[in-house]
Amino acid sequence: MTQTLEPDTTAGATAEATDAADDASARVTGWLGELESALAAHDVAAAAGLFATESYWRDLIAFSWNFTTVEGREGVTDLLTHTLEPTGASGFALTEPAEEADGVTTGWFGFETAVGRGRGLVRLVEEDGPKAFTFLTTMYELKGHEEPRRTRRVKGAEHGADKDRKSWAERREEETEALGSTRQPHTLVIGGGQGGIALGARLHQLGVPALVIDSHDKPGDQWRSRYKSLCLHDPVWYDHLPYLKFPDNWPVFAPKDKMGDWLEFYTQVMEVPYWSRTRATKATWSEADGTWTVEVDRDGEQVTLHPSELVFATGMSGKANVPTLPGQDVFAGEQHHSSAHPGPDAYAGKKVVVVGSNNSSFDICGALWEKGADVTMVQRSSTHIVKSESLMEYGLGDLYSERALDAGVTTEKADLIFASLPYRIMHRFQIPAYEAMAEVDKDFYDRLEAAGFDHDWGDDGSGLFMKYLRRGSGYYIDVGAAELVANGDVELAHGQVDHLTESAVVLADGTELPADLVVYATGYGSMNGWVADLVDAETADRLGKCWGLGSETTKDPGPWEGEQRNMWKPTQVPHLWMHGGNLHQSRHYSLYLALQLKARYEGVDTPVYALQEVHHTA
Amino acid sequence: MTQTLEPDTTAGATAEATDAADDASARVTGWLGELESALAAHDVAAAAGLFATESYWRDLIAFSWNFTTVEGREGVTDLLTHTLEPTGASGFALTEPAEEADGVTTGWFGFETAVGRGRGLVRLVEEDGPKAFTFLTTMYELKGHEEPRRTRRVKGAEHGADKDRKSWAERREEETEALGSTRQPHTLVIGGGQGGIALGARLHQLGVPALVIDSHDKPGDQWRSRYKSLCLHDPVWYDHLPYLKFPDNWPVFAPKDKMGDWLEFYTQVMEVPYWSRTRATKATWSEADGTWTVEVDRDGEQVTLHPSELVFATGMSGKANVPTLPGQDVFAGEQHHSSAHPGPDAYAGKKVVVVGSNNSSFDICGALWEKGADVTMVQRSSTHIVKSESLMEYGLGDLYSERALDAGVTTEKADLIFASLPYRIMHRFQIPAYEAMAEVDKDFYDRLEAAGFDHDWGDDGSGLFMKYLRRGSGYYIDVGAAELVANGDVELAHGQVDHLTESAVVLADGTELPADLVVYATGYGSMNGWVADLVDAETADRLGKCWGLGSETTKDPGPWEGEQRNMWKPTQVPHLWMHGGNLHQSRHYSLYLALQLKARYEGVDTPVYALQEVHHTA
Repeated sequence: MTQTLEPDTTAGATAEATDAADDASARVTGWLGELESALAAHDVAAAAGLFATESYWRDLIAFSWNFTTVEGREGVTDLLTHTLEPTGASGFALTEPAEEADGVTTGWFGFETAVGRGRGLVRLVEEDGPKAFTFLTTMYELKGHEEPRRTRRVKGAEHGADKDRKSWAERREEETEALGSTRQPHTLVIGGGQGGIALGARLHQLGVPALVIDSHDKPGDQWRSRYKSLCLHDPVWYDHLPYLKFPDNWPVFAPKDKMGDWLEFYTQVMEVPYWSRTRATKATWSEADGTWTVEVDRDGEQVTLHPSELVFATGMSGKANVPTLPGQDVFAGEQHHSSAHPGPDAYAGKKVVVVGSNNSSFDICGALWEKGADVTMVQRSSTHIVKSESLMEYGLGDLYSERALDAGVTTEKADLIFASLPYRIMHRFQIPAYEAMAEVDKDFYDRLEAAGFDHDWGDDGSGLFMKYLRRGSGYYIDVGAAELVANGDVELAHGQVDHLTESAVVLADGTELPADLVVYATGYGSMNGWVADLVDAETADRLGKCWGLGSETTKDPGPWEGEQRNMWKPTQVPHLWMHGGNLHQSRHYSLYLALQLKARYEGVDTPVYALQEVHHTA
Repeated sequence: MTQTLEPDTTAGATAEATDAADDASARVTGWLGELESALAAHDVAAAAGLFATESYWRDLIAFSWNFTTVEGREGVTDLLTHTLEPTGASGFALTEPAEEADGVTTGWFGFETAVGRGRGLVRLVEEDGPKAFTFLTTMYELKGHEEPRRTRRVKGAEHGADKDRKSWAERREEETEALGSTRQPHTLVIGGGQGGIALGARLHQLGVPALVIDSHDKPGDQWRSRYKSLCLHDPVWYDHLPYLKFPDNWPVFAPKDKMGDWLEFYTQVMEVPYWSRTRATKATWSEADGTWTVEVDRDGEQVTLHPSELVFATGMSGKANVPTLPGQDVFAGEQHHSSAHPGPDAYAGKKVVVVGSNNSSFDICGALWEKGADVTMVQRSSTHIVKSESLMEYGLGDLYSERALDAGVTTEKADLIFASLPYRIMHRFQIPAYEAMAEVDKDFYDRLEAAGFDHDWGDDGSGLFMKYLRRGSGYYIDVGAAELVANGDVELAHGQVDHLTESAVVLADGTELPADLVVYATGYGSMNGWVADLVDAETADRLGKCWGLGSETTKDPGPWEGEQRNMWKPTQVPHLWMHGGNLHQSRHYSLYLALQLKARYEGVDTPVYALQEVHHTA
């Protein structure tokens, strides 16, 4: 997140710089050659010997058909012992000049396996010769199943004369009508927000018969239906969907309705097979048939689908966490979870208590205050806040910004650089960025604390992104509402809610907060809650907790997993997949999920290395 | 069209190549420096002396606030005598290494004027030192009115707390409601096909209150409503709209319905102010008010608009040319112009006579034959045909293809290279390409002629693109239907239509062609026909013929104009503009048209050099 590759584009590069680059390239080429030889000789020990004492190999489906990070020579040995033979990796070659900085040589490379083509990024350090400190391998396409892009794109017009010609519109209509009736989808994607749409687009490109279903009236309503002032909290450079980037006039932080429009039209022009106003009501796996049976309600019509693979793209936040509190039944006002909050318009002049102090709470408190409501935020535990501008500058700027693009860091490169930083040590790269933010925004944090706000920087000071990866909560990207808390415009109360009365929220210390409306900005459960609802509790438990790294920090119990639990990769429930995350994750990881599904659709052998065990059921 | 700039990206470029590139760059830099000095000294003669005996300076609004090509030192002298002072051009500088090939040194440069920033392309030849053979100058932005793109893009989210906050959707709704009622559009664009949409997008970006009106139900229906088998005849790389390129999985030749979806999507996400189901019925200029009064029918509601500038984007093809023939009133079958042809579905087994032998005729004949109609094409005069694949390879491949992109020729660069070739000598670059096509497709042409088809290569052998620029007709880009004529599946008849009987078309030589349907694929008139309808005949005559170069070839009477008549530039009718052409022209030239309109909106002085005279009224 903080280390970039900045190709030397200075026209007047000195001869020394050129020589250094040549040396760096030679070093990486040499290392790749040794790796190639070791793999060709099936010499696992020799290959493992190319890694440094502290080292991390992250593989995204190229060797492991899994998302896997192994550590040290022991980890490499284990990975290769299981995967060297079936993978048949070869052809490792530098794809652009390598670079050296601070004793680390970084090189981009390509390679292939028996069934696919890959790319990767290696960082070499000196330890009795060049040794890999980090090694990323990813597959980007299956041989014989390349996507129809660039020179492979379809022609569109079918030249020549053909008495049986069907127009594009006719073919598309036939396909649309057949899917789910005379032709079963191979993959059913439940949930058509950005995650489902991105995956649907990739599967369509790959020729996998897939169907995305969603309960809203149309694509994009997942965003449009949220509270009025909502804008993306991540900047545009981080948020592109696959294949079709936002144009360069797109707002830095897209307003939710504009994002909704984009998703709707993306779905249309990418020809994502998509059923709106459709809810899955029951899913059952039949081992005998080798398919799921999924009952769906399509705008009132009952349809039974038989997909081979089932993907939950229902939101990584999972199901709403609505606390059960004494007195909720006697409270005379309105109460709802943040996910059901309609926006502030109806609450001008009303007393509102918002329980919780993370992103949703701040956004909702800010919008309510703007509309003239009398707002109190109830902080139950400490929260981490960073100012949006600072996060862009210190957190993302090297990878996702105009500055990064100018330096040659395309979105695709940024995604791989991002992916190349092992989760185990990612906090090391994060801590300095947040220290810098603490320094530059010191006034802001001082005021916030003076107002009594309980602020933290994460268990180890590693800030927002690690909180996101570990627990998916506990923070606010400040776009202005924190100032309202700091200056008292939004009142602050502390502690757990004890009960509700007819007209107030009462905290554990007896504080009584009069309320016409209570908003529970109390977050979300694990995604496997959706599985419990749709399949059954046993399957949800077998799948286990989704999200988190096992970092043994708050709300992310161990043991260490090395990758995010259950996301985008095979789970303990065969033929069931979890997809989600922010736009960046939906974009990048949908590639590997789509390739995994494509391989299964085509009958390509996909031996999974180190299938994750389940340690927590929720 | 055939000359490209291929930056030397070979890693192992030899020292000699580097030296040659350095020399080329030094040559261009020296030349630009001399130009700069001459301009600074207001020394027109010295500046003109920097041009070769045969030379062409094409300016797109940077110096001339016009589309202008001047020729030789005399032309340069005239241009600079009128424009040097007000333009205030300076800061000419090479923007990337220059290149030398076959005695021509080519260099990209940037510059600025008193009011704007420009870029250009110069080709130097040796004539007592380096002299300009071609010199292209274009303005791409007005100072102080830069477009909100990349680092200037809008933020979207308005950080901070604001009691008067309006969401993006609310603001957009307010603007939409105000436009045309409480707020008059500065520019009214009549016609919302690709031309109107591209211009509307640019004007929106530039902050010009503009409105695009169109009679169809929604954007894209201009394409959707055409005959079923229609696909773009130009390849995708040539067809991008401004700001948002087709993704790299887009078909080479997009089917019309897919193109329609894209245009609809584009209009929405680019926030083009657009009224569908709207027809302009009358337009009058009031000199006293300095505005047009335009009556429009908006889905049944009568609205009066008062724009300052009026743009016709009603299709460069102009109004349908329907021949008046004896017997049309007694003919018992169906008859319609090609633009009204609904596609083949209703005509299986029917006898169809298609009058004309250009693009529309071939497309319609092919589709009818595929559906099982008995089709005869009436060829009235010779037609030029090229195979689509050959046109892509020999005609466009160096500029608009994956090959071009791989060589660093972006769409934006290709557009400028294309624009840098003066119309006066463009045929010279075209002839060899068509000679190559004649050679490679010899079998095809032999068969076509054996079938009696009257084929030509243009008056001077310069082929399709020159025909397009000169007369906008007389050719077919073969996507398969020519084969049907060659093999006799579509029958061929020759000559003018003399009259119709109750059941047949009768040709001048007496040939009787039985017909259930007659399609008049007889082309279109000049765009000023639209002006006659909407304003009056006097204004249409004052405007004069649109399109054509004055090449004194068939259907393009002289005198030589140097630029396309009346397109994208000031006309003899103040505040009235013509916009149109293929997707390439709509994309590129809408930039200069939008900047001309923006300058007028902002009150920037726009002295027009060499306003075109009118030599033909239709």
